[in-house]
Amino acid sequence: MIKVPGFLGSAVSSGVKRSGKLDLALIYSEVPAKAAGVFTTNIVKAPPVLLGMDRIKSGYCQAVLINSGVANAFTGKQGLQDSIVTSKDAAHELNIAESLVIPSSTGVIGGRLPIDKMKKAMPNLVKKLSEDGFMDVANGIMTTDAFPKYAVKQINIGRKKGTIAVIGKGAGMIAPNMATMLAYILTDINVGKRALSKALKNTVNNSFNKIIVDGDTSTNDTVLILANGKLGNTLIKETGTEYKKFEMALTEAASEVAEMIVRDGEGGTKVAKIIVKGAKTEKDAEKIARVLGTSSLVKTAFFGEDPNWGRIVAAAGRAGVDFDPNKIDLYFDDQKILSNSKEVMDEKKAQSVLKKPKFEVTLNIKSGKASSFVIASDLTFDYIKINAHYRT
Amino acid sequence: MIKVPGFLGSAVSSGVKRSGKLDLALIYSEVPAKAAGVFTTNIVKAPPVLLGMDRIKSGYCQAVLINSGVANAFTGKQGLQDSIVTSKDAAHELNIAESLVIPSSTGVIGGRLPIDKMKKAMPNLVKKLSEDGFMDVANGIMTTDAFPKYAVKQINIGRKKGTIAVIGKGAGMIAPNMATMLAYILTDINVGKRALSKALKNTVNNSFNKIIVDGDTSTNDTVLILANGKLGNTLIKETGTEYKKFEMALTEAASEVAEMIVRDGEGGTKVAKIIVKGAKTEKDAEKIARVLGTSSLVKTAFFGEDPNWGRIVAAAGRAGVDFDPNKIDLYFDDQKILSNSKEVMDEKKAQSVLKKPKFEVTLNIKSGKASSFVIASDLTFDYIKINAHYRT
Repeated sequence: MIKVPGFLGSAVSSGVKRSGKLDLALIYSEVPAKAAGVFTTNIVKAPPVLLGMDRIKSGYCQAVLINSGVANAFTGKQGLQDSIVTSKDAAHELNIAESLVIPSSTGVIGGRLPIDKMKKAMPNLVKKLSEDGFMDVANGIMTTDAFPKYAVKQINIGRKKGTIAVIGKGAGMIAPNMATMLAYILTDINVGKRALSKALKNTVNNSFNKIIVDGDTSTNDTVLILANGKLGNTLIKETGTEYKKFEMALTEAASEVAEMIVRDGEGGTKVAKIIVKGAKTEKDAEKIARVLGTSSLVKTAFFGEDPNWGRIVAAAGRAGVDFDPNKIDLYFDDQKILSNSKEVMDEKKAQSVLKKPKFEVTLNIKSGKASSFVIASDLTFDYIKINAHYRT
Repeated sequence: MIKVPGFLGSAVSSGVKRSGKLDLALIYSEVPAKAAGVFTTNIVKAPPVLLGMDRIKSGYCQAVLINSGVANAFTGKQGLQDSIVTSKDAAHELNIAESLVIPSSTGVIGGRLPIDKMKKAMPNLVKKLSEDGFMDVANGIMTTDAFPKYAVKQINIGRKKGTIAVIGKGAGMIAPNMATMLAYILTDINVGKRALSKALKNTVNNSFNKIIVDGDTSTNDTVLILANGKLGNTLIKETGTEYKKFEMALTEAASEVAEMIVRDGEGGTKVAKIIVKGAKTEKDAEKIARVLGTSSLVKTAFFGEDPNWGRIVAAAGRAGVDFDPNKIDLYFDDQKILSNSKEVMDEKKAQSVLKKPKFEVTLNIKSGKASSFVIASDLTFDYIKINAHYRT
């Protein structure tokens, strides 16, 4: 059940997807909500991203219009115009300012938005808006996703109970032509602008930015947070206990959705949390974790349930981080594999960890006190199958 | 036919490989040859690499002893001792100084060298040395390789005809636990020490360092050049016409072998030369080319023969290089796909390029005058098959 006081949602089938599935979704806040966003770092940014980045500067957003099926990416000035037109149509139908609407698109790169079909669907989309409409939203924003993704948390703010809902899509940070990562975070908690931006940045850093399916970054990746203040709590500023509680709950909810994205990673069968400890800096730890999480050899070994520690240490060694290769400890869950770089594994037990759908790989390089992690999928036959013939 | 005046080669089956295939190879120069080497940049370096890096400092090498089947990597002090012992055995049998022998190992990480079996095989290995023995060497250093890899060039140096032979192995820069990239370059041309180092560095940079199968770098990667001066030509120093001719021939021969490695890339069906033009610096061009060559999405599209330009531009956009995404030209061979970022492709013709076993992808980002390239394989079902269950 996804329900957040003061927010309404809906989705319809506008004909963007030929399958007739839900393909146009709307998130609406009864009042203009404070808002912040994090967008793709790819320098090739889709027009809806460029428009969103511009509009979020005001710090407010009241509606998000998301279409799935066509990414409206690499479509130039025409694409930007199309995003402007569709959000104007939504604003008109909602009777709110155009600048308070942020559009998102996900789907195939290079094609134009079917703006006429979308315009035609708009009255029905707005009419259907309901506080129970968010399951439709979660379904309507899917592309290659096998299942809808969302998480809801409630936390006590003073004597009141605030709600945080995260609705996301993406089968990995993965196919830039179809499987963009999108997430919308809705809350009724009253949060200051700076606190909202800070909490979103930290949250994304510790959730969506930690997941790796194939290392590709989409042209359309977007995470938005809308806080409508309906709870009426004392404004949360960017420090203090309440702030910490808020950020923690946000990170928890976002991490749940991030993990669902990895679990749904195209063709993936495993979710591996790769933790690197004992680095000099968090950046060093993350560098190594990322190389491990993107190494095709490490990922195929996970798929093969093969406790092939040689691939892990060899991949760690090429991360560009200096450490003593004779001092490595390695664990699969609580099974010790290497102790000071000597193999100490019980092969059967090591393998039984890798047979699980979810496990942790912990590498301690003993050079310092910093650590980091990534959450990665494996690399499978199905990944190739899905991606080799995707577009044609 | 691999024949270089003054060089002898041989290989035997010592029992390192259980299959009974050739697994111990020897390259021998009748006189101490001037030598230079390039070794893995992975900080986890196998003991034979550490020993080779030390011994090459003298600038001379007379014999290279290569075993396949066991990488002697991640074996610590014991591994270093084992490399020292086996090269001492070879030196003893050849009656040359121990310091003139450089060992190489390729195979599974973590296991000890079977030094006794290798010692036992040494007399026969030396006895078999012959100027016709280099096909055995090329076969004896193979691991997952489907075919032996070598190239021979002859060039006129003054009135004399010098020979350059490159013998290599590797099914990609690929499985660190088995498919190390090794290459040995033998020449009878009289080349100065500094010229030799410079030519090797430039050659490796433009051949072996340009190939990408899965982006993983082995703990054992080694390229050695031995120049025995038998041709008796006037010493080639590091500038001038003769030097340029030498470096060019070296690069040509090494590029042939490098391309064979990509062609043999585990499970690969395509060899794509990815050229990035119009960058501000060569480094920028190479950064983008490398991201394209390692992107799982781009590589699966090649495998699927899918002219999916969206994946190419999206991958280019995340390379960390600044360029105008609205000005891209893209070609598959001579077929124009994008003109100033607008699709202009004839889909059938574009697809027919990708159906070829070898093609060029040229991306012009029009920000400057620098260019670079990589040579990449595709990502296939067979890659997963080979690597998922390799070790166990």
